[in-house]
Amino acid sequence: MQLTDYIRTIPDFPKEGISYKDITPLLINPKACEFALSKLIEGLDGKQIDKVVGIESRGFLFGMLLAKALGVGFIPIRKPGKLPSKTFSQAYDLEYGSDTIEIHKDAIHQGEQILLHDDLLATGGTAAAACQLLNKLGGEIVQVNFIIELDFLGGRKLLPNNKVNSLIRY
Amino acid sequence: MQLTDYIRTIPDFPKEGISYKDITPLLINPKACEFALSKLIEGLDGKQIDKVVGIESRGFLFGMLLAKALGVGFIPIRKPGKLPSKTFSQAYDLEYGSDTIEIHKDAIHQGEQILLHDDLLATGGTAAAACQLLNKLGGEIVQVNFIIELDFLGGRKLLPNNKVNSLIRY
Repeated sequence: MQLTDYIRTIPDFPKEGISYKDITPLLINPKACEFALSKLIEGLDGKQIDKVVGIESRGFLFGMLLAKALGVGFIPIRKPGKLPSKTFSQAYDLEYGSDTIEIHKDAIHQGEQILLHDDLLATGGTAAAACQLLNKLGGEIVQVNFIIELDFLGGRKLLPNNKVNSLIRY
Repeated sequence: MQLTDYIRTIPDFPKEGISYKDITPLLINPKACEFALSKLIEGLDGKQIDKVVGIESRGFLFGMLLAKALGVGFIPIRKPGKLPSKTFSQAYDLEYGSDTIEIHKDAIHQGEQILLHDDLLATGGTAAAACQLLNKLGGEIVQVNFIIELDFLGGRKLLPNNKVNSLIRY
């Protein structure tokens, strides 16, 4: 199976000149989802994971499947103001302006082995901010995995201390 | 197992006077997630499902698990401007103002048996708008299920033509 067969490229979305990689054809195909999940698990090389962290909102999709497949808990990293208990926040730069993500302070214990998941690695700002949050909580980031990585945006450079695994690289 | 043991009530969130039901203690517990998923599946009484539709963003969590457990595809309903291909949009009223959700036009075929999922049924505006989108695409809504239903907000009244199943009712 070729996972790229299940990724649709939408030209000029969300704005002119950007070729958006759409994962909805993957999501709608249960066999392709099963295959993607098995490849993400394979990429862990049997490493011990205590918790899976997924980044809102598309990181929730395979994040929950990964947590279930590994038999561990799932922790959401969310946009500001969404998590109701005490949080740590981390800002990161966007092309224009900045954005912030949050995690519950009680979500992770010192030394826990963490798998961080999101669907797409682009410029890497969100993933790097997520790693800062996980480090602040004392989590050990075993791996950061993605369905898609846009190599030409160089996001991996923002994750120099992490093992990164992406199923599809453009 | 009592699922209510895994729901945390946060007073005065997101604003004074509201008791927010936090599902993160459920998400972090793999046994509780497994139990919740099995109860959601049980609630289908063996009915045939062709696709699971989940509402952004917390409906993505158990939505994906349900799709995988049923061996069917997953379709996201998203906030405006997030889905890259052609969409139908549906506006709905909020306490102050209104909001909109979208679905890809090619996501569902006429007559497909649909399970709609979200984590919370509150006033019912979002779920009712989602049902309107599914009807527009010709989907047959077999059931709408939720982890939590806030009975006192009467959201079920906005879904008069649908079978509604909620794991926890407050």
